Amino acid sequence: MEYEKIIQILYTELRDIEDNGQVVNYIPELADISPDKFGIAICCIAGEDFGIGDYQEKFSIQSITKVLTLCIAYEKLGEELWKRVDVEPSGTPFNSLVQLETDDGIPRNPFINAGALVVADTLISILENPKEEFLSFVRRLAGQESINYSEEIALSEKKHGFRNIALGNYLKALGNLNNDPDEVLDFYFHQCSLEMTCSELAKAFQFLANVGVNPIDGVSILDKSKCKRINAIMQTCGFYDESGEFAFRVGLPGKSGVGGGIAAIHPGHYSVAVWSPRLNLQGNSFKGMNFLERLTTMTEESIF
Amino acid sequence: MEYEKIIQILYTELRDIEDNGQVVNYIPELADISPDKFGIAICCIAGEDFGIGDYQEKFSIQSITKVLTLCIAYEKLGEELWKRVDVEPSGTPFNSLVQLETDDGIPRNPFINAGALVVADTLISILENPKEEFLSFVRRLAGQESINYSEEIALSEKKHGFRNIALGNYLKALGNLNNDPDEVLDFYFHQCSLEMTCSELAKAFQFLANVGVNPIDGVSILDKSKCKRINAIMQTCGFYDESGEFAFRVGLPGKSGVGGGIAAIHPGHYSVAVWSPRLNLQGNSFKGMNFLERLTTMTEESIF
Amino acid sequence: MEYEKIIQILYTELRDIEDNGQVVNYIPELADISPDKFGIAICCIAGEDFGIGDYQEKFSIQSITKVLTLCIAYEKLGEELWKRVDVEPSGTPFNSLVQLETDDGIPRNPFINAGALVVADTLISILENPKEEFLSFVRRLAGQESINYSEEIALSEKKHGFRNIALGNYLKALGNLNNDPDEVLDFYFHQCSLEMTCSELAKAFQFLANVGVNPIDGVSILDKSKCKRINAIMQTCGFYDESGEFAFRVGLPGKSGVGGGIAAIHPGHYSVAVWSPRLNLQGNSFKGMNFLERLTTMTEESIF
Amino acid sequence: MEYEKIIQILYTELRDIEDNGQVVNYIPELADISPDKFGIAICCIAGEDFGIGDYQEKFSIQSITKVLTLCIAYEKLGEELWKRVDVEPSGTPFNSLVQLETDDGIPRNPFINAGALVVADTLISILENPKEEFLSFVRRLAGQESINYSEEIALSEKKHGFRNIALGNYLKALGNLNNDPDEVLDFYFHQCSLEMTCSELAKAFQFLANVGVNPIDGVSILDKSKCKRINAIMQTCGFYDESGEFAFRVGLPGKSGVGGGIAAIHPGHYSVAVWSPRLNLQGNSFKGMNFLERLTTMTEESIF
Repeated sequence: MEYEKIIQILYTELRDIEDNGQVVNYIPELADISPDKFGIAICCIAGEDFGIGDYQEKFSIQSITKVLTLCIAYEKLGEELWKRVDVEPSGTPFNSLVQLETDDGIPRNPFINAGALVVADTLISILENPKEEFLSFVRRLAGQESINYSEEIALSEKKHGFRNIALGNYLKALGNLNNDPDEVLDFYFHQCSLEMTCSELAKAFQFLANVGVNPIDGVSILDKSKCKRINAIMQTCGFYDESGEFAFRVGLPGKSGVGGGIAAIHPGHYSVAVWSPRLNLQGNSFKGMNFLERLTTMTEESIF
Repeated sequence: MEYEKIIQILYTELRDIEDNGQVVNYIPELADISPDKFGIAICCIAGEDFGIGDYQEKFSIQSITKVLTLCIAYEKLGEELWKRVDVEPSGTPFNSLVQLETDDGIPRNPFINAGALVVADTLISILENPKEEFLSFVRRLAGQESINYSEEIALSEKKHGFRNIALGNYLKALGNLNNDPDEVLDFYFHQCSLEMTCSELAKAFQFLANVGVNPIDGVSILDKSKCKRINAIMQTCGFYDESGEFAFRVGLPGKSGVGGGIAAIHPGHYSVAVWSPRLNLQGNSFKGMNFLERLTTMTEESIF
Repeated sequence: MEYEKIIQILYTELRDIEDNGQVVNYIPELADISPDKFGIAICCIAGEDFGIGDYQEKFSIQSITKVLTLCIAYEKLGEELWKRVDVEPSGTPFNSLVQLETDDGIPRNPFINAGALVVADTLISILENPKEEFLSFVRRLAGQESINYSEEIALSEKKHGFRNIALGNYLKALGNLNNDPDEVLDFYFHQCSLEMTCSELAKAFQFLANVGVNPIDGVSILDKSKCKRINAIMQTCGFYDESGEFAFRVGLPGKSGVGGGIAAIHPGHYSVAVWSPRLNLQGNSFKGMNFLERLTTMTEESIF
Repeated sequence: MEYEKIIQILYTELRDIEDNGQVVNYIPELADISPDKFGIAICCIAGEDFGIGDYQEKFSIQSITKVLTLCIAYEKLGEELWKRVDVEPSGTPFNSLVQLETDDGIPRNPFINAGALVVADTLISILENPKEEFLSFVRRLAGQESINYSEEIALSEKKHGFRNIALGNYLKALGNLNNDPDEVLDFYFHQCSLEMTCSELAKAFQFLANVGVNPIDGVSILDKSKCKRINAIMQTCGFYDESGEFAFRVGLPGKSGVGGGIAAIHPGHYSVAVWSPRLNLQGNSFKGMNFLERLTTMTEESIF
């Protein structure tokens, strides 16, 4: 069966199932979203693209951006990067400070907040205009100039982000930030505020399913080996404390965000993005997780 | 290039590289092994089998048995099993007691010692003669009746295994063992003492690369979905605190043992076993890890 | 006002107050005790002795024995002892294994179970017949030959004491037991099973209120400096996770047991024992804690 | 022997002993102090005051101020205060974030940095001009109008205090700060920058040795019961991770600061302040600890 048909079936199945998940509410801008939005988009390496539901509506992709900042940092710094951030699953919630204390300031992986702050710090050191250049990078990947930060969300994150401010200052205290914590946090809050549609997100992740090459223009974003490694990190660390569960049930590398988005890839086959704002108890999209589980079951394809 | 040629090249490359890793020494029976043993065996789903070096010599496969006991328990209990053991990477060393204390006696995954003890406890409840039946299961998988426990090693593990005895009693105190800790530990110490060759080990793991079906006799050991899930757990949890690193560098589901063995699979392609007793600091075979990294690099194949 | 009168008043006040505390129930022998027993005994250095309520009834003094084994070990080994056990409050429950893992097997203090097991291990190394000699020591202190272990309780502790068995084996694994864990645990379970009356207990603790000298026979049990130090440890570590609260509310060095007993001393003034089996949530006698708080309030005397 | 003579002897003994302790160096203003400063001052309730060495030189009293802010907060809020901060020894270093994570934002005691920040937050809510009023309070206690904050040190603490900024924001994230973290931190950094002489410090602590009454003017600062409780907290929590050791060796309630100062009291007898900037590995003044240990040994007086 073609992906298009499978996705139509799953969309219909899932659209109306009971879902009591809560929308994330730590900032008003995210809490105000309509909770029943549901969109899916897929980009197949073979060429077929498809979207359904609210797949052309912008939403806050939040932590999904951590994959994209990581790609830039890894491409620029190479294996040096891993001296400052590890690649192991964390075993603790995404915003835990405990792990840093026991591991001397080296975050367990680049997808917990502490790790993403260290990655943000490297970009501030590497790039001339980090915010602008990161935005250009994402726009190029997605082939869409309208992609932008939400200044309202970035501001609200700053105003309410006491835990991230704590993390940033703690990393600085432990010697693993080179720049001023306020500057790193400003970049990080902007990064997280990025708004994209499912369609754009699936497109932006396509190179990870295609040995690092952007199929739009044939340009290599990451070499093959680095691409494989980014995928491995998504597999083991992409879903916070539920990464093992995701590998177990879905069997694809992916990354979720508290805005209810998930991007995932099947190497050599496709990239897929799904959005539904209601979250399960681990902070991942309830419908998004379910869709991906059913997708790999129905296609009888996963990496395992 | 064929697997056989690649493995010959890698064997030659690695046989003589400097390796200052220490052989595990917590019991004399394991410490006495010749540290420079090195064997590799591969079983391809397509049919080709190949071995090189000390691939026909028995060694103590230790924790690699955890995959096989898990398969029996999962097949018999189904999803009920996951009420007693989780599927998340641990973030702490394999024999840590800390995690149990914070998670109310639910081990993070079935491959840390605590999780394997819970799995052993389920087998004692399910099977009539656990030690005999587990042995039969492995012999059938490998097609080799000579496979056996080492009573010397099992006895020595019992005599020196204070930490495992602590874990077993602690699990009992926390209410997650149904049987007597001494009985569970006796089974566990026997299980770990199992001795196999690389050749037998690769054969025994073949069904996991073949959607759960043993290619020797066409019998289904696990249904396709369960097989996929076991592979996912090996991917995220198979190398203790180095699981992320293994996914990152190698990109295959696998499981290591302190005896210096590693079994890994590429779904749809092959199962492979490698043995070299010198361990890296994380307790995984130094040459074994290197061989598998080079194998996926040279074949340009991995799951990612 | 004299102590006798104050104690009479407090006994009457507290005898009938509401107390929904639970009797400890991890072994049947302790759970079967009548929950409303209540006895108090005081021994004044100046000479006056007094008891009220069930002060002449034997009960299981449990962890209170940890002070007495510590006195023998400290007297015999001197400051060497502190290489194997620290004197800091623990910040974690009395039977936690976590702390050992982070502190390389050195228990935080001799009054958490791990610390008491290390002390028991030293006594097995030092004494020829540890069980007999410890019993003689306590009998001499209390001037009462009828004091004895409860073999039923010792046996039941062994049968149900999975957590202590875990602790003992874990200490052995970490290299901080010199003897066989089973032997150490056997002594420890016997020690905890000791049965005494409030009257005997107050007498046995009198030397700690009297610069180390047993007022019964004038024999020095501990030199003055060591006595002061034992009192300091009781002050900072005697009530598990509630030690700070006890210092805060009561202001006397003391030690509690899960059997509902508490022994406390006011240096230079008196030793006091109270028994009421209903425990608060921290595992200390609810009425016992209240009695001691009111005693120091009413006498307007504490060490602070 | 009189205190004066004993202190003269001890001062002479300790002045020239080898002391390789390091002066605290996290801010330049504290690192620049002459490391061999050594001063002692005692205020006896009976009337005799005495000082020796550098006892009239101002130094940064740092964490010793935590006792004084606590006294104001406790006097104003009463037992309500303990809903927001506990009174248990911490078992972890003074500036640990781990404990907060496991205890839902309730600091273990008011003398670890997190606890002192919560106390500072209460003062900002209670007092109209917190910085001015706290200064007045200390000046009155010490009878010395020249006491003041060091704006240089306060500024430098703010500039380098990433860990404290992390703590403040983390407390806010956990819901245990009512005011803006920046405002709380500003007060806290000022509080810590307070400069006093040994002579002034001993005088300021005198009321704690005198059932809460300032002997200078007969005014009650704290009621007797609250005074006793503050002393109990100093006893169990005053020396960070070395509180048990301090109780064990010295046997007096006290509080240390990283500037090398220690204030201690013997209830009913005296308050004493000692200053020597070289610290032991736990961050307490090496000579200060030694002086107090010898003082209680030589006077044969302690609370135990």
